[in-house]
Amino acid sequence: MFEPQKQARVLVEALPYIQEFHGKTIVIKYGGNAMIRDDLKEKVMQDVALMKYVGIHPVIVHGGGPEITGFLKKVGKESSFISGLRVTDEETVEIAEMVLDGKINSEIVNRLNRIGVRAVGLSGKDAGLIKAKKKLATVYEGDETRRVDIGYVGEVIGVDISILKDLIAHEYIPVIAPIGVGEEGESYNINADYVASEIAGALGAEKLLLLTDIEGIYKDYNDKSTFISSLRAEEARACIRDGVISGGMIPKVEACLMALEKGAGKTHIIDGRLEHSIILEIFTSAGIGTQVEK
Amino acid sequence: MFEPQKQARVLVEALPYIQEFHGKTIVIKYGGNAMIRDDLKEKVMQDVALMKYVGIHPVIVHGGGPEITGFLKKVGKESSFISGLRVTDEETVEIAEMVLDGKINSEIVNRLNRIGVRAVGLSGKDAGLIKAKKKLATVYEGDETRRVDIGYVGEVIGVDISILKDLIAHEYIPVIAPIGVGEEGESYNINADYVASEIAGALGAEKLLLLTDIEGIYKDYNDKSTFISSLRAEEARACIRDGVISGGMIPKVEACLMALEKGAGKTHIIDGRLEHSIILEIFTSAGIGTQVEK
Amino acid sequence: MFEPQKQARVLVEALPYIQEFHGKTIVIKYGGNAMIRDDLKEKVMQDVALMKYVGIHPVIVHGGGPEITGFLKKVGKESSFISGLRVTDEETVEIAEMVLDGKINSEIVNRLNRIGVRAVGLSGKDAGLIKAKKKLATVYEGDETRRVDIGYVGEVIGVDISILKDLIAHEYIPVIAPIGVGEEGESYNINADYVASEIAGALGAEKLLLLTDIEGIYKDYNDKSTFISSLRAEEARACIRDGVISGGMIPKVEACLMALEKGAGKTHIIDGRLEHSIILEIFTSAGIGTQVEK
Amino acid sequence: MFEPQKQARVLVEALPYIQEFHGKTIVIKYGGNAMIRDDLKEKVMQDVALMKYVGIHPVIVHGGGPEITGFLKKVGKESSFISGLRVTDEETVEIAEMVLDGKINSEIVNRLNRIGVRAVGLSGKDAGLIKAKKKLATVYEGDETRRVDIGYVGEVIGVDISILKDLIAHEYIPVIAPIGVGEEGESYNINADYVASEIAGALGAEKLLLLTDIEGIYKDYNDKSTFISSLRAEEARACIRDGVISGGMIPKVEACLMALEKGAGKTHIIDGRLEHSIILEIFTSAGIGTQVEK
Amino acid sequence: MFEPQKQARVLVEALPYIQEFHGKTIVIKYGGNAMIRDDLKEKVMQDVALMKYVGIHPVIVHGGGPEITGFLKKVGKESSFISGLRVTDEETVEIAEMVLDGKINSEIVNRLNRIGVRAVGLSGKDAGLIKAKKKLATVYEGDETRRVDIGYVGEVIGVDISILKDLIAHEYIPVIAPIGVGEEGESYNINADYVASEIAGALGAEKLLLLTDIEGIYKDYNDKSTFISSLRAEEARACIRDGVISGGMIPKVEACLMALEKGAGKTHIIDGRLEHSIILEIFTSAGIGTQVEK
Amino acid sequence: MFEPQKQARVLVEALPYIQEFHGKTIVIKYGGNAMIRDDLKEKVMQDVALMKYVGIHPVIVHGGGPEITGFLKKVGKESSFISGLRVTDEETVEIAEMVLDGKINSEIVNRLNRIGVRAVGLSGKDAGLIKAKKKLATVYEGDETRRVDIGYVGEVIGVDISILKDLIAHEYIPVIAPIGVGEEGESYNINADYVASEIAGALGAEKLLLLTDIEGIYKDYNDKSTFISSLRAEEARACIRDGVISGGMIPKVEACLMALEKGAGKTHIIDGRLEHSIILEIFTSAGIGTQVEK
Repeated sequence: MFEPQKQARVLVEALPYIQEFHGKTIVIKYGGNAMIRDDLKEKVMQDVALMKYVGIHPVIVHGGGPEITGFLKKVGKESSFISGLRVTDEETVEIAEMVLDGKINSEIVNRLNRIGVRAVGLSGKDAGLIKAKKKLATVYEGDETRRVDIGYVGEVIGVDISILKDLIAHEYIPVIAPIGVGEEGESYNINADYVASEIAGALGAEKLLLLTDIEGIYKDYNDKSTFISSLRAEEARACIRDGVISGGMIPKVEACLMALEKGAGKTHIIDGRLEHSIILEIFTSAGIGTQVEK
Repeated sequence: MFEPQKQARVLVEALPYIQEFHGKTIVIKYGGNAMIRDDLKEKVMQDVALMKYVGIHPVIVHGGGPEITGFLKKVGKESSFISGLRVTDEETVEIAEMVLDGKINSEIVNRLNRIGVRAVGLSGKDAGLIKAKKKLATVYEGDETRRVDIGYVGEVIGVDISILKDLIAHEYIPVIAPIGVGEEGESYNINADYVASEIAGALGAEKLLLLTDIEGIYKDYNDKSTFISSLRAEEARACIRDGVISGGMIPKVEACLMALEKGAGKTHIIDGRLEHSIILEIFTSAGIGTQVEK
Repeated sequence: MFEPQKQARVLVEALPYIQEFHGKTIVIKYGGNAMIRDDLKEKVMQDVALMKYVGIHPVIVHGGGPEITGFLKKVGKESSFISGLRVTDEETVEIAEMVLDGKINSEIVNRLNRIGVRAVGLSGKDAGLIKAKKKLATVYEGDETRRVDIGYVGEVIGVDISILKDLIAHEYIPVIAPIGVGEEGESYNINADYVASEIAGALGAEKLLLLTDIEGIYKDYNDKSTFISSLRAEEARACIRDGVISGGMIPKVEACLMALEKGAGKTHIIDGRLEHSIILEIFTSAGIGTQVEK
Repeated sequence: MFEPQKQARVLVEALPYIQEFHGKTIVIKYGGNAMIRDDLKEKVMQDVALMKYVGIHPVIVHGGGPEITGFLKKVGKESSFISGLRVTDEETVEIAEMVLDGKINSEIVNRLNRIGVRAVGLSGKDAGLIKAKKKLATVYEGDETRRVDIGYVGEVIGVDISILKDLIAHEYIPVIAPIGVGEEGESYNINADYVASEIAGALGAEKLLLLTDIEGIYKDYNDKSTFISSLRAEEARACIRDGVISGGMIPKVEACLMALEKGAGKTHIIDGRLEHSIILEIFTSAGIGTQVEK
Repeated sequence: MFEPQKQARVLVEALPYIQEFHGKTIVIKYGGNAMIRDDLKEKVMQDVALMKYVGIHPVIVHGGGPEITGFLKKVGKESSFISGLRVTDEETVEIAEMVLDGKINSEIVNRLNRIGVRAVGLSGKDAGLIKAKKKLATVYEGDETRRVDIGYVGEVIGVDISILKDLIAHEYIPVIAPIGVGEEGESYNINADYVASEIAGALGAEKLLLLTDIEGIYKDYNDKSTFISSLRAEEARACIRDGVISGGMIPKVEACLMALEKGAGKTHIIDGRLEHSIILEIFTSAGIGTQVEK
Repeated sequence: MFEPQKQARVLVEALPYIQEFHGKTIVIKYGGNAMIRDDLKEKVMQDVALMKYVGIHPVIVHGGGPEITGFLKKVGKESSFISGLRVTDEETVEIAEMVLDGKINSEIVNRLNRIGVRAVGLSGKDAGLIKAKKKLATVYEGDETRRVDIGYVGEVIGVDISILKDLIAHEYIPVIAPIGVGEEGESYNINADYVASEIAGALGAEKLLLLTDIEGIYKDYNDKSTFISSLRAEEARACIRDGVISGGMIPKVEACLMALEKGAGKTHIIDGRLEHSIILEIFTSAGIGTQVEK
């Protein structure tokens, strides 16, 4: 594609970035289009493999919404949603777990192994990785706010990262499905952004990258010139209060804020629809997406 | 239950067995009723936990036949069988993998973790554990023998046990779903007896225990007095040739023979319907089931 | 003795205890009848071996009173006692050391090795394990209290447990004779209860077990119903002040209290005349003897 | 230079090469223009740093001819040459060592450290790295061949690579000046190509790269179309016999052949005048220079 | 004593010897006058401490004949000897063990610890160090040779040196009493020369030093000029056959020969009555005693 | 020289000193006559080798004044001095580095390796060992004090001792030339006393030995009876203030004081003209030179 000498220069220009992140842990929340389009999938795997080979320790947490919905339909189960959260009965969480752990997770692990790195799939059940409890949905009715039980939708109450440390020490790449375990051993389906956030915090990761389907945060989404390439935690909190950040971006930004609080270095909301978005963010001066830092 | 002093004596009587297996690896093929009945499940977990705590390294390989069939029905897929093997199209193997890895495996891992040991679930995809290829069914029509392609039913062509060794070294219990990966990254559903056999061989396991739904091997199944409690490899081969061993017992005994050839110490076909069958076999002089050894 | 299935249940019932003490150090003061009666001796060795094999680190400190007296007689030396302590001239301490280290200690080590664990005998001289100084006897004459020099009877002034840690790390069982070394290199015979106490404290042992020839502590030794199965340190101190604990029990309870102060977890005065008293205490819910804890 | 997305693609295209050489040792003979021109120097350092950061273990052996000559002039010492080898009296070898070890070596080490890797300078004296003996010059007079003593010009008779292994294990980059030590402790100036060859052999290096001032080997240097991009050891030997390889290329090719014999994987004569020639050779499909392999 | 500058020269002259034995194991059979005379005792301890501090691993095996005899008398037991071996009933071996392990061994350990090295006392019982069986005495009556059972006198049938290796690795000095254990757990008193020989062989010791009460071997003990300072194994065997070596020297030389066969480097019969005989042998060119080598 | 028995006694008398310094690091500033006279050189090497073999970790920092001057003359460069410091232009520092690193350092390393220890030569450039900045000379003109730029004369602003720790851990002896590196990568010639002081401090060395050409410090250099064998830091500072310590002794004493402040244990100014002065100081009770301690 390129003439060799130019290739060499590109490689050398990546050197400072490689040096900066050598030996560091980077947690990637993998989701959205990057997990759906086949061409993008392969490029994400290449990005992760490259990270690994230049001495970075990648950890992957993936979501799985659309496939779960698809599979529930297949078994003739309609999903209902309350405040954007799927009402999740026992059968639903069982199917969610099967899709997340037995299908999506396996596929990612398989792709990584085939590209020449060694990945190991985990869910929150393995070695007690993710402890969870029920999360209630919040419903607004007129002036009133109600908390509604929607079943096996969970939130993280603790992580035991010893299995991650052991696998990383042996140069494996952990790939994590966002299933948590409750007190009684019951499974919970958890938002993958939050799982990635908790794990990035507990590992003291250098970076948390959230792959999304938007370019990042805009002050005004109708005006491309208002793109925010970096904002500090307190600014982010102000943006949420002021409604600048709203809708689906709120959980993303909250995940970033929580990761920072719990010990992660920097967090990035990046556009997974771009080819090699991870490499762009980490190894070039391009500066894609929105960075949230302390 | 018992008076303390007798309990103490029982514990002391187990000492020679504990000494014998201390630091050794024992592979358990977990299947049949022991995986279906809830009371038995819990007892198997206790047995495995006890093994772990007295210094044995257990490795579990599980099957999943009935649950796969159940789930296929749920999604409206009829299973057809040729020579006892399920015709497995792409959708079927996908569902099989989801059930094996995302449901059964997860449940075992979860139960073990809850009982106080640290288990990690694996499929053949994790870190390239099980390499597989297509296995053809053999059909007998009159005098003719035909080999029929029945889809994604596989056989093991190689195992990379480094992930097992790393996990064992860190005191985790590996729990393995019998899914293999083909040359092109495709998944194969594999008979769990054979997977357990290959892994026991590659690990040089002290023992391979196959949990089944029969007491063991009889010369004549109608005559309880013809029970065979131990037979050597060559005798086992003769029994197959002579038809003494037939039907569903053939793959069990073949799995034993292959494990012995590849490096396992001893193999046992035991009755998983008995409570604490594993402990009975390993820690008492009871000598349940049929032992196949070199 | 039992049918196998019951044996299996007994083993599984021990699991919680095994989990609780796995990887912990337990110091056993071995003495009394358990060290005299041949049948009991063998059972103590089995108990210790079982502890070792389920992942506990036992450390044994033994006494030797009766045998020392016997041997002194043999060489024609009468023992005189002041306030219960043997008047110990140079020849006496030499003989005491020979009996303790060259006979009793060797026998325990030998029995353990023969039962399949690896024991190493030590006295306080090995690698500077026990530093000691002279202990004066207290004599009450009328209203007066006098301190009398009775020779080479010592008390511990310091322990260097590095040899114990090194041996434990290599999976040996240390067996310790209660001989200490003074400033000038002279030997002292020390009460084994106190030695066990000091070592349990310095090792931060999970438990100190004192094997005695009584069931434990009673409020009133004539009334079996007044048995005390557990008492806190301050209660124990009160019992001594109030005379509830008196005579030979005082040093036992003092040894418990000192071990607790110096870092041991719990202490137990148990009846060594019971078969498998150690296993009963550690691996069953029987709760024999009297426990003294913080 | 490039737009970010193209940079990302270039990086990903290097992945297979990075994977291939990860954890391998590559010995670089650094000399010629790449050691004289300031722009090239910096690029070589970048190349070496990049190698290091993607997990390769580089080892550098450098020459120093022109600077030695320059310095000898400075102190008023004329150099005379016999058969291309400098007549080297004691003062000359002392100055050669000072220039090689105290100037050139120090500068390389310094440049590498400043670019963010950790280099350590060595000569053959450090930890007994290079044992040497006198090398006689061969003079052809008419039909006669004479061996002439030209002083402290040496050849390698043994290498002790333990210091290299220790430094590599701690992630340092060894930079080696081609000074050897004789039986009596005397210094010898040795051809750096041969030193690099011996070290590559002893380390079992994956590759030996000789940076030269020519493109590689031609069958006919007047005809650019006769460039040889790869030749096997026996072919190389034939080319020397037939005179296809002659003059200054003979020692280069001999160094390659010796390295192969002693354990190196592949050897490359590459054009150090090209920017990033090392990266081009290792990380691209460009295939510069001439490769000599078994 | 000496002027400092001369002291410095002496130290430097020891350097080549220190270099030669650094990191090597040297087994010392400690016995005779060196174990009886108080001034010599202290000097032996200094010698051993010096060895330890310059990086040598000393292992000590001691005898104890005279003290055992003394103690037997004390308890009113007469010793009878057959062919130079003490008739050893159960009580005798018990006393022998007490004296060897509980008195002599303890004293050596104590002295070493007080001089600033860390010694640990062992008998053949510790961690199964010395396995033994009964040794019959040979009685010559007229032309006949009879083998007579003289009780618990043993010979080594195997050594398990793992405890020695573990202690040496942690920088302890093992001090070994020559007691072996039989099949049934019974104790045997064994000739310390043979024990030292077996241990030196099994450890692959650099040297075995036998401290004796003679200068070494003479061709003719009446003619001081016939001293043999070195002889090869086959010569030594010839000397025994020819009667040049006879009486008490035979077991010494046999111990040397066996050590050489089993893996020791060199063996030395040295005069323990000389002050600092060990240092003289190891660190000076003095060359005392008789060396037996392969 | 001595009869063997006396040699043995001398060795034993060194034992307490060997014990005291075992495993400790001792930094030696090597300079003056001990580095010029051939007989003394060899003795210093023996001293260092002996230290190494008895378990001490020596680190050597050397100077090189006279040889630098000699070589500058050779290339026709006159040296001018301001306030005792050489005016050092770029060419001068280049030559200084060549002499220090490529000649003196190499020779020391070579001598040590030949005597049987493993030395590795370093300058401040290796692995970023010594960071430096320009040091101005202080000139007194009448009442005025001026600071004058005299070129590449430096002072230490930081040391990175990781390369020293790595080499020491592998039992190498680091030999350090006093060259530092500035911000821009430029070389600085630094006073070796100060370099030794900084390194002794950073390593937390047990001792810093400065080899000089005087006996130590006198209150009055004309009166031999006023020799000071030991003084505390505050006394030393007072002596400088009062002019008791003056001239060339000031930097020596300042180096001692700085080493003490930064973490060294004790410091010694000793007379390198004495044979084996290092051994005398460390291994005998002779107490040569002046000791400065906290």
